[in-house]
Amino acid sequence: MRKIVADLHAELVRYNLVVWTAGNVSGRVPGEDLFVIKPSGVSYDELTPENMVVCDLDGNLVEGGHAPSSDTAAHAYVYRNMPEVGGVVHTHSTYASAWAARGEAIPCVLTAMADEFGGEIPIGPFALIGDDSIGQGIVETLKGHRSKAVLMQNHGVFSIGKDAKAAVKAAVMCEDVARTVHVARQLGDPLPIAQADIDSLYDRYQNVYGQRSPR
Amino acid sequence: MRKIVADLHAELVRYNLVVWTAGNVSGRVPGEDLFVIKPSGVSYDELTPENMVVCDLDGNLVEGGHAPSSDTAAHAYVYRNMPEVGGVVHTHSTYASAWAARGEAIPCVLTAMADEFGGEIPIGPFALIGDDSIGQGIVETLKGHRSKAVLMQNHGVFSIGKDAKAAVKAAVMCEDVARTVHVARQLGDPLPIAQADIDSLYDRYQNVYGQRSPR
Amino acid sequence: MRKIVADLHAELVRYNLVVWTAGNVSGRVPGEDLFVIKPSGVSYDELTPENMVVCDLDGNLVEGGHAPSSDTAAHAYVYRNMPEVGGVVHTHSTYASAWAARGEAIPCVLTAMADEFGGEIPIGPFALIGDDSIGQGIVETLKGHRSKAVLMQNHGVFSIGKDAKAAVKAAVMCEDVARTVHVARQLGDPLPIAQADIDSLYDRYQNVYGQRSPR
Amino acid sequence: MRKIVADLHAELVRYNLVVWTAGNVSGRVPGEDLFVIKPSGVSYDELTPENMVVCDLDGNLVEGGHAPSSDTAAHAYVYRNMPEVGGVVHTHSTYASAWAARGEAIPCVLTAMADEFGGEIPIGPFALIGDDSIGQGIVETLKGHRSKAVLMQNHGVFSIGKDAKAAVKAAVMCEDVARTVHVARQLGDPLPIAQADIDSLYDRYQNVYGQRSPR
Repeated sequence: MRKIVADLHAELVRYNLVVWTAGNVSGRVPGEDLFVIKPSGVSYDELTPENMVVCDLDGNLVEGGHAPSSDTAAHAYVYRNMPEVGGVVHTHSTYASAWAARGEAIPCVLTAMADEFGGEIPIGPFALIGDDSIGQGIVETLKGHRSKAVLMQNHGVFSIGKDAKAAVKAAVMCEDVARTVHVARQLGDPLPIAQADIDSLYDRYQNVYGQRSPR
Repeated sequence: MRKIVADLHAELVRYNLVVWTAGNVSGRVPGEDLFVIKPSGVSYDELTPENMVVCDLDGNLVEGGHAPSSDTAAHAYVYRNMPEVGGVVHTHSTYASAWAARGEAIPCVLTAMADEFGGEIPIGPFALIGDDSIGQGIVETLKGHRSKAVLMQNHGVFSIGKDAKAAVKAAVMCEDVARTVHVARQLGDPLPIAQADIDSLYDRYQNVYGQRSPR
Repeated sequence: MRKIVADLHAELVRYNLVVWTAGNVSGRVPGEDLFVIKPSGVSYDELTPENMVVCDLDGNLVEGGHAPSSDTAAHAYVYRNMPEVGGVVHTHSTYASAWAARGEAIPCVLTAMADEFGGEIPIGPFALIGDDSIGQGIVETLKGHRSKAVLMQNHGVFSIGKDAKAAVKAAVMCEDVARTVHVARQLGDPLPIAQADIDSLYDRYQNVYGQRSPR
Repeated sequence: MRKIVADLHAELVRYNLVVWTAGNVSGRVPGEDLFVIKPSGVSYDELTPENMVVCDLDGNLVEGGHAPSSDTAAHAYVYRNMPEVGGVVHTHSTYASAWAARGEAIPCVLTAMADEFGGEIPIGPFALIGDDSIGQGIVETLKGHRSKAVLMQNHGVFSIGKDAKAAVKAAVMCEDVARTVHVARQLGDPLPIAQADIDSLYDRYQNVYGQRSPR
């Protein structure tokens, strides 16, 4: 599990979702009330299975030689309140954070968005770090929502998934569609996709493809 | 053929046309009613000649241990209906997909576009995945058109070529001109190129250079 | 110290803050009135601990086989007038330089900006190279300001830090927020963050996290 | 000389000035009426000193197993008519080509532009490939102009230098300032730099620094 989480950070780097140390991945340990998360202040080049840290669902350090990510409380809150979630990712990726800075949801005008997010990517509240405010904002926004990603106002993206890899995929796809819809909007209004078509695309992608392997 | 198709996916990665597993290349097997295509859900790092899959022109799996790309039906429809086509590429590349989201063709305001596409890059219809709608949209738009690429509305790009490499080149050039024309349009109106000049550039590039090697 | 400064230039390249040889890092030698800086006209690929140059606080070459960076006078002025500064970085990074070309400060509309810069990133005066004008402009703007980066009008960025690595981090974060706020502004007005929230974020990041390790 | 020219193409790739095979570098052979240029249709990965081709100043192939670049006539015209030029580069780099598509010169609003180009980067005429039109447009625009780069309308960039490396540097800097000024203009009007300041920066950069090594 430590190796999986350590390695997945390379995807954040590969897709330019992070600079310096400002982004993190966590994964729930199957069958235990624990999760593995990035250590604080360690650069992506230096992440190894060994320096990953293990926390309980209150965000307390259980195992590891470094302090856990400063975003650990938000990850922990999600794991405590969304038992179906097995992975959480946080980034300040450029285009998604730009929508977040305006407090504007990304409208669903691409079939790839309908597939992955089932509609718009919503905005969560402005929340300060230091208590459960960010975690609450994530959970209130995503509970019962099709989207696996939320744009926290003036802040950045949190994404969730059945496991850490799925959460990373959601973070990657979120930035990709945030960028494409931004670029589309720069020169006019994107054409809407009918709700029935969005539903049909989402249903097919989650179910038909879900029975085999992800596209 | 498997090796050629596997290797060409690296060009999609190199030119940032794809994220995660969301793009695919196929190539017709010369002299047979078969084509080689990317397996579904396999990342670009892991593509090898061995895990490529072979399909017949109805899109049925003929050979291979993985399910074929979820876009296989569209590739197959093109091969069935455009016998001159030897390669097909599909991407959601950012700038081309942004034009597609607005349902707007890319105007021919660059000599490189006149060379490669002979005019504008056209818009194809909105079509749902699951039957032949996407394939029909591609073929109806590109048959008899100079352009080797079509922007499928709210979706992404399909490009074709005499072989897989030519289709990849068309996908690369499509994103490149989509980006440059987008950037040009952000600050004003690009200057038009006279139709006679477009015709002259296209003719020269396809014929004079076609007799030797591509530029 | 030479090795640290040489190696930190790779971060400027990694984050696309520089092209050709147009950016430089320096670091004060602890306990001495000296600093190490990039040699002039040497490409980033060729930087080694050995070809770094050492200057005194008037910018005179003390040790090294190459001329020091053409921006040495500005670095030296900062070290002479801001004893708490241990590192200085200069770049022409794209988005920050674009704000600088308009003479416009970057407003603090992202929590990451509040964390790192404690508010807006300010504009410094237009100043010609060749005397102390650039150094004076940097010091006048940053003295007593929370921001560790200044956008010199029509020119580029200078950033400072307690050591060379902290100054590089400020340069990286400056471009990152310059880009995100630019992108946000392209499609409307970013939402403001209340001053009390900015103060609270800055205080926490500089103090609570400062006592352990940087995020 | 073949090795220098072959290797310099890697800089075009490194700075994202080219896609596929659409850009080329040439260098005059010192003391001879010859120049070395990229072969046509060979990808940048495959360029070696051995497959570079040598042409005379009329653009005729003198040595080499491949056809010379399709832009050879333009390079040759420049060498014939500007004896001080030792290197020529052609690209379709995105931002510079976007200014070219609008037929708009890049205004000098950055000190780095004043240093390198001494003022605006000018627009050359629309010209078709196939005779000396492009070469004439380059020479008419750049003769007696401080700028070492010209934006050929609806086409792309040609840059010149005392040698091939200087021409590559001009191509790299041209795209860099084209991008920064574009980004600046997206959100308002960049502040002008006084002509006297432009003159002073250009003079210093070309002369003071010219006597030592480039910055």
